Parts: sequence; C-alpha cells; structure tokens
Amino acid sequence: MFENPLVSPYFLPLLALFAGLLFVTLIAILVSVRFSFARLNESVLFERWKVWAVIALVCTFPLLSGDIPTLLLLTAMIFQGLREYTALVKLPAGYSRLLIGLGFLVVPAAFISPETFFFLPPILLIFGTLQPMFLYNESKGEGVRHLAFAALGWGYIGWLIGYLALIYKYESQGRAILAAVIMAVALSDVGAFTVGKLFGRHKLAPRISPNKTVEGLIGNILGAYIGFGLIYFTLPFHQPLVLLLALPPVIGLGAVWGDLVESAIKREFQTKDAGNWLPGFGGLLDRIDSLIIVGPLVYYFLRIIQ
Amino acid sequence: MFENPLVSPYFLPLLALFAGLLFVTLIAILVSVRFSFARLNESVLFERWKVWAVIALVCTFPLLSGDIPTLLLLTAMIFQGLREYTALVKLPAGYSRLLIGLGFLVVPAAFISPETFFFLPPILLIFGTLQPMFLYNESKGEGVRHLAFAALGWGYIGWLIGYLALIYKYESQGRAILAAVIMAVALSDVGAFTVGKLFGRHKLAPRISPNKTVEGLIGNILGAYIGFGLIYFTLPFHQPLVLLLALPPVIGLGAVWGDLVESAIKREFQTKDAGNWLPGFGGLLDRIDSLIIVGPLVYYFLRIIQ
Repeated sequence: MFENPLVSPYFLPLLALFAGLLFVTLIAILVSVRFSFARLNESVLFERWKVWAVIALVCTFPLLSGDIPTLLLLTAMIFQGLREYTALVKLPAGYSRLLIGLGFLVVPAAFISPETFFFLPPILLIFGTLQPMFLYNESKGEGVRHLAFAALGWGYIGWLIGYLALIYKYESQGRAILAAVIMAVALSDVGAFTVGKLFGRHKLAPRISPNKTVEGLIGNILGAYIGFGLIYFTLPFHQPLVLLLALPPVIGLGAVWGDLVESAIKREFQTKDAGNWLPGFGGLLDRIDSLIIVGPLVYYFLRIIQ
Repeated sequence: MFENPLVSPYFLPLLALFAGLLFVTLIAILVSVRFSFARLNESVLFERWKVWAVIALVCTFPLLSGDIPTLLLLTAMIFQGLREYTALVKLPAGYSRLLIGLGFLVVPAAFISPETFFFLPPILLIFGTLQPMFLYNESKGEGVRHLAFAALGWGYIGWLIGYLALIYKYESQGRAILAAVIMAVALSDVGAFTVGKLFGRHKLAPRISPNKTVEGLIGNILGAYIGFGLIYFTLPFHQPLVLLLALPPVIGLGAVWGDLVESAIKREFQTKDAGNWLPGFGGLLDRIDSLIIVGPLVYYFLRIIQ
C-alpha cells in the first residue's frame, strides 16, 4: 500500500538521472541565453525547464511510494483532466459533477482487477443513458448531446488514463515501465520542440496544430528513444531488447497523436489552453494529452509482444 | 457453423409455442373487433400481431441455424440500427459510413472471444480520435461533436447489441436464454400495452414518453414473466428456478428503460420514428431499443448469479 520511496531500488537511479538531466539542460539553456539571468527569466525554455522539474518530482514520488499514492496521483490527473474537459466542451453543471464523480471509479477499478476495469465502461454506458432523464431540466433539450460528450470525455480522459494504472499494477516491472513511459513522453516533447525549431519545414497538420512539423515528429521519436534509453540503462530492467527498440516509436507517435487530439478539441471549442491550472503549465490536459493515447498503446503493445 | 433448424431440439417446442400464441392472440383480436374483417384490417392490434409473427420467424430461424446465421442476424440489426441512428443524429456521410463500417466488427469480435469483444472499444476509441483529422473537410468545425455522437452510437447501438452474441455463444444454454430474452421482451411490450390501456393512470416520464404509465411498467414486468415462463416450460432448461423468478423483472425494467432512451433521442432530434424501414414497423431501432439495454443487463445478471 505505502512504501518508503527512499528505500526503493528505483530511487537513487531516478534521482541521479533527473538531477543529471536537469543540470545538463539548465546549462544548455544558460548557454542559449548567454548566461544573462534577465533573459533566462524571460526564456520560454526556462519556463518549460521549471515545469519539467516539478513534473519529475510530482510523478516520481507517488510512483515510488506504493499503490495508494500512485492511485491518488492518477486519480488526481483524471479529476483535473475531466474538470478542464467539462469546461472546454461546456457541459452543464449537473452533467459535469456526475462525469467528474464517475472519473473517481477508474483507477480503483483498475487496482481491483483488470476484469473490473473492463467491466466499468459498459455498465456506465448503460446507466449513463439515464442522464438525459434525470438531468432533464438542465439538459435544455440537448440531453443526448450532453450524454455523448460525457461518454466521450469519460472514455477519452478517464478511462484511457486508467491504462497507466493497468501498466503499473499488472505488467511485469510495471512501475519501471510506467516511469520509462513518462520519461519517454517528456523527452519526446523536448525532442519535437528542439528538432522542430532547428529543422522544421513541412507542416504536419496545419489546420489543427499549425506549429507541428514532420521534422518535429522525427524529433518526437528520437526524444522517446533517448528518454527510454536513459531509463533503460538506469533501472534494473530484465526486459528483452525489443522493448528498447520498438517501444519508443510507439510512444513518440502516440505522443504526437495525443497532442493533436487535444488540439482538435481546443480548436473546435476555440480555446488556447485547456485551463489555467498552474502558471506556465497551461491546463493539466495540455501536459497529459500525450499520455492519454500513449498509455493504452503501450499496454496493448506489451500484451501483444509478450 | 450451419445447422439444420428443423432438427434442433428447440424447433418443435418453439413452433408449438409461437403457433399457439399467435392463434390465441388472433382470436382475442377477432373478439375485440367482433369478427368484422373490415375493422380487423384497420386495427392497430392486428398490425402489431403481423409484426410479431414476422419477428418470430426472422429471429427464430437464424437462432436455430447455427453460429453464422445468428452472426448475420445480429450484424444486420446493428447495421440497420446504426443507419437509423446516423440519420437521427444527422452525422455527416463520411462519419456515418465509418461508424456503420465499424459496426460490422462487433459480432465477429464477440464470436472470436470475450477478450476480443472487450478489446474493441478502447482500440476504436483511440483510433476514433483520428476521425476529426481525417474527416476534417466534412466536419465543418464540429469534428469533436461528430466524434462524440459516433462514439455514443457505436457503444449504445453496436456494442450493447453485441452482448446478445455473448449470451448466445458463452452462456450455458445461451441459445435458449437468448430465445427466452427475446420472447420476454416481446411479451413485456404486449403486457405494457395491455395493462397500460386498461389501468394506466399515472404518467411514468411525461416529458420524454407521454404514453408510458406506471401501470404499464407493471404490465412490462408481468409480460416478461409470462414470456419467460412460457419458454421456461417449453425449452429444455436445466437452470435453477432463480432464473425464472429473478430474470423477468430485470428484462421488464430493462425493456422500459431501453424504450425511454430511444424516446429521449428521438425527442431531442424531433423525429417520431427512427426510420421507415418496414410498413407498420416504424424504424428497426423502435423494435430493438429494449433489447439494447436488456442484453447487457441479462449478461451481467447471469455473470453475477452463476
């Protein structure tokens, strides 16, 4: 249930890895601003660097502290993700409360058993059909529309994040895999940013996300290789090399895909960021959109190759 | 794969049961019109009687003819159900084609294995998120809305009907159970109509379906008991009595529930019938709306009590 994160075999390697990465990237950013602290404070890269430092802490400690902290971390992601989603698609208050409430079921269900996890969506879909009736006064003649958006939101934000819980709990060395996935997604983002800035020429999906380039996508995959590779050599993995070779492209592509999905939602509802949750963060959804797609892709990839 | 329905142990009992029921009800209708054939032809009851005669044939033969005819019957239900749904919620053509195409996967997946059946929704949800991108020109800035309605439609119409395939294929005496469920749903309808007409006073859900009464709901449950009971004594069931006692209320309530859900959709989109598929039938969706909810409820009920 609860473990002391300081005695985890993953603690020291992860600490060394994160400290090293943060140090090296801070130096690189300092070089890029020619060691001017005024420009450092204005730099978008430094802003992002701080975000990553916080994410590293916020994700690592629960992961190393056992089942209940991990459950709380993932549930908090779903909670905040659904809050931003309901605001984004303008769900009425009654629907929003119900949807966010049902989001709390996902990770506990995954921790009980995979069967419970796969049992949830049909049951909620069936009982969800009652929403337009019980929330009739609030639905203003659009109950089915709200039901459709609630169902999509629960599946896309809540249930797909739940796959991270399945990986953590049921894959062999699930905790290390989850750490590696988060790491690879993070560096995939950095890779896309860097390669895109340096070599970006060909637009990837100009109508949905005008800043994305095909070159950036290659950066995504490279970044995922670097992120996964760094963890691979740090953590006590007993996995075949195929993981190291085949998983990063899945993660890199999934990361871009997840990004595009969220861009499509934001564009349709004419919002720039999903929320204003933490300064510099944008919405939480903007940070975890990649994990939403990467989680289930990795889960099924592992099922298939094992 | 294919069986001769005439040698099925269920054939003669079902034939006797249906012939008897159709004969008795025809006499009852003839009495109600005082044996006037002119009034018989105008009677809504006779219209419905003919519909039930056709349904009895159309459902029984595939069910008795083995896996592939049953697969075709259920897939045809999903196909026509999704066609009516896409018209009802006004999905653009590209989305409709894709959604209807994905409906063809449900029953084959269920026949391959329950795992495959439960594997389908997350995979389709993930790949479905690409819809707003690939159908960008058609989405007219409403890609996420269309995705939400497509996801709801696939789940509600396609996947929930798939539970009938799970019952048929994996429950012990699944074929008999499926026949009993269809029979109970049919007589539940008749029971609601009869009791509602005779004793209906208290509106059940006046804003969604003004003709439904609380008394009619009791008729639903009574009808389900009669339908299930008739089959129970006809077919070679080796089930405990608890099935006979506890399943009909589940079926009766599920039937009303399914009806109300479809009414809510039709009301929101201001259509009276989901389609005009067969004269007297209305839409196919109007006939199978109850089965959509009853199927999964019965499946999970059987899982829990066994």
